[in-house]
Amino acid sequence: MDAEIIAVGSELLTPLRQDTNSLFLTDKLNSLGIEVRFKSVVGDDRERLASVFRDALGRSRLVILTGGLGPTEDDINREVVAEVLGRPLREIPEILAAIRERFARLGRPAMSENNARQAFVPDGAEWLENKRGTAPGLWLEQDGIVIILLPGPPKELEPMFESICLPRLAQLSTGWRLRTRVYKIIGLPESEVDQRIAPAYRTYTNPVTTILAVAGSIEVHLRARAPTEQEAESLLSDLGDKIELALGDHVYSTQGQSLEEVVGIYLVMKQKTVSIAESCTGGLLAERLSRMPGSSSFFLGGAVCYSNELKVKLVGVSPALLETYGAVSKQVAQAMAEGIRRGTGADIGVGITGIAGPSGGSPEKPVGLVFISLADDRGTQVWEFRFPGDRERVRHWASQAALEIIRRRVRRD
Amino acid sequence: MDAEIIAVGSELLTPLRQDTNSLFLTDKLNSLGIEVRFKSVVGDDRERLASVFRDALGRSRLVILTGGLGPTEDDINREVVAEVLGRPLREIPEILAAIRERFARLGRPAMSENNARQAFVPDGAEWLENKRGTAPGLWLEQDGIVIILLPGPPKELEPMFESICLPRLAQLSTGWRLRTRVYKIIGLPESEVDQRIAPAYRTYTNPVTTILAVAGSIEVHLRARAPTEQEAESLLSDLGDKIELALGDHVYSTQGQSLEEVVGIYLVMKQKTVSIAESCTGGLLAERLSRMPGSSSFFLGGAVCYSNELKVKLVGVSPALLETYGAVSKQVAQAMAEGIRRGTGADIGVGITGIAGPSGGSPEKPVGLVFISLADDRGTQVWEFRFPGDRERVRHWASQAALEIIRRRVRRD
Repeated sequence: MDAEIIAVGSELLTPLRQDTNSLFLTDKLNSLGIEVRFKSVVGDDRERLASVFRDALGRSRLVILTGGLGPTEDDINREVVAEVLGRPLREIPEILAAIRERFARLGRPAMSENNARQAFVPDGAEWLENKRGTAPGLWLEQDGIVIILLPGPPKELEPMFESICLPRLAQLSTGWRLRTRVYKIIGLPESEVDQRIAPAYRTYTNPVTTILAVAGSIEVHLRARAPTEQEAESLLSDLGDKIELALGDHVYSTQGQSLEEVVGIYLVMKQKTVSIAESCTGGLLAERLSRMPGSSSFFLGGAVCYSNELKVKLVGVSPALLETYGAVSKQVAQAMAEGIRRGTGADIGVGITGIAGPSGGSPEKPVGLVFISLADDRGTQVWEFRFPGDRERVRHWASQAALEIIRRRVRRD
Repeated sequence: MDAEIIAVGSELLTPLRQDTNSLFLTDKLNSLGIEVRFKSVVGDDRERLASVFRDALGRSRLVILTGGLGPTEDDINREVVAEVLGRPLREIPEILAAIRERFARLGRPAMSENNARQAFVPDGAEWLENKRGTAPGLWLEQDGIVIILLPGPPKELEPMFESICLPRLAQLSTGWRLRTRVYKIIGLPESEVDQRIAPAYRTYTNPVTTILAVAGSIEVHLRARAPTEQEAESLLSDLGDKIELALGDHVYSTQGQSLEEVVGIYLVMKQKTVSIAESCTGGLLAERLSRMPGSSSFFLGGAVCYSNELKVKLVGVSPALLETYGAVSKQVAQAMAEGIRRGTGADIGVGITGIAGPSGGSPEKPVGLVFISLADDRGTQVWEFRFPGDRERVRHWASQAALEIIRRRVRRD
């Protein structure tokens, strides 16, 4: 059973808005082993929608339309689908009652004339309750083709599809089940990841392996198909174990967590606290460490010491050190890590100083040069990095590297 | 001249990747008054691509295909387009030479056999130089329809389209020109923005007005069409002036700048420096203030004092104050703003303390309660907010509110 998704709405044909519902739907459909073969976006235009919908009926056994179910004249999906399928529109009193009831419950003024349009649906369509809005979804079957109409807003579409459509499709879909697993990797370039794991994944056509570079991490995605979910999982584990072995502790997550979440989990587990002193990252590392709920149990805080004066005042870096080595130096990074640790009483102190650019670089100290230091009860270490790219990328890479340094230290403790 | 965009690539039919080239292309096409009427995504499958391409030729005068121009077997666009248009593939020696030259220049090993496939193009196609990769673009015309094939990677597609295709399309497109303007607004809910500006925009069918809520700001987008760019600009100014008048200083940007950029521009202009002490935002405000190149001229730095101890140690909040009023209180926000200003010698000190959640709330001090204080040479003020939403949203809204407080203070100075 192959699927096709048609997103309807003129705003989706502007540079301002994009159809994202299809990503959610594809993910859910794939879990049932249903592949999406075509995606289209079409405006609020009867003739154009009819043409795209007709093409879809000619080639797909499952056609999902999103959007176009609202109460206004622009919302044409009900009418176009009825017309193309050759079914009259019929009023469903229960839909009208449900909309009225919703307006009353939310204390809104009486339902408008327009909302009554939402109760007219193609003859023979089943309506799908919308708990988050007025537009009901619709489910139709014709000539062995399943046609589903869903409301456009993700917060209405997602629960409706998951709770009503997915279980029904699971029964209809006699195909194989699909399971996925994601390995997140740090500290190796994409080419090196590929080189290490290619000998393993090349011998498998199932699972299918995809390598993606995503914002300072490499991700290896595995997709396995099998008659049952258990068999698909076992295929995943079979190849996955080989991948983990080849990549070792460069794999920081197999459960979808972000790098900062993994660091937080280790810090909580090992009951360690951390404080940071940042210069070039300007608060980004603090922001990432505090993103996670409950981070106050391991993250005490830190200093954003953008100026030399603040490095002295907030973290106690000696002016002589700044004068001798410059703000961007191993020595200052170390003094920042030690200073913030001492000043806050944290188990671990981290210092970051570097040149994010675009200005401030020199031949000896180019843009992208970053020193990161970690101080704990076993002493102080410092690492030197040269990150490529613009200001935003240098800052992101520096925060990635700092998190990875904390991860490696705490993991071993 | 209406356009249609076909994105080709099986990875674009997974939940992992999305076609974003069409947003760039739409923006550029719109600037010439060309509207995009259909967008499709199709996998690396000859039959399916041929079917979608045939449909496109039947309904659009400009058809743009993206992706599928690489050197591998999966890259089928050249061949499918040739077949559907009934043109043989012909080898272009210049393309081969250009690819060879590129390999030599980058010091790569000799061109592979596969790359030679890229030199075979549909008879009569003009090839478009790719300065960032090996895949040349292609331009064909048939039966009054323009067909453009572009490489998939945005960093190859964007310069090629902008430098070669756009000027040609400008000559072909006899239609009206389209100009856009974006007003960014803070401090008013979407409904209030609409209420204030509806009397103005309702009298215009050109420009078209769209109101969007984007991450803590409201944006009003105007799109005007006219025979010339000058006339379109004058239509924009005509309605735009009324919108600015209705919204007053809630409009913080009309040139696309972010709120932090606007704040930075004002601080530089007024030669003021700022330091911040943050608790619940955990470094987010510092990160936003330091995002802009050159921010070291106005942003001295700050303290992320997540724990009570750090509020005392880094910012000098008195333990008695924390004990009496609690960490989340007007008094502590004020002490943080005054403390960081005093400690760093900045013109302006900002303090933020609040409950981002999900835990830590109480009936008296619920999740979302945030106090923001600003201290400068005219004294100290404090504001109380109750932000809705989850941890991420509360943190974002709090940083927005703090930036807006700085903007209003500095603007008036």
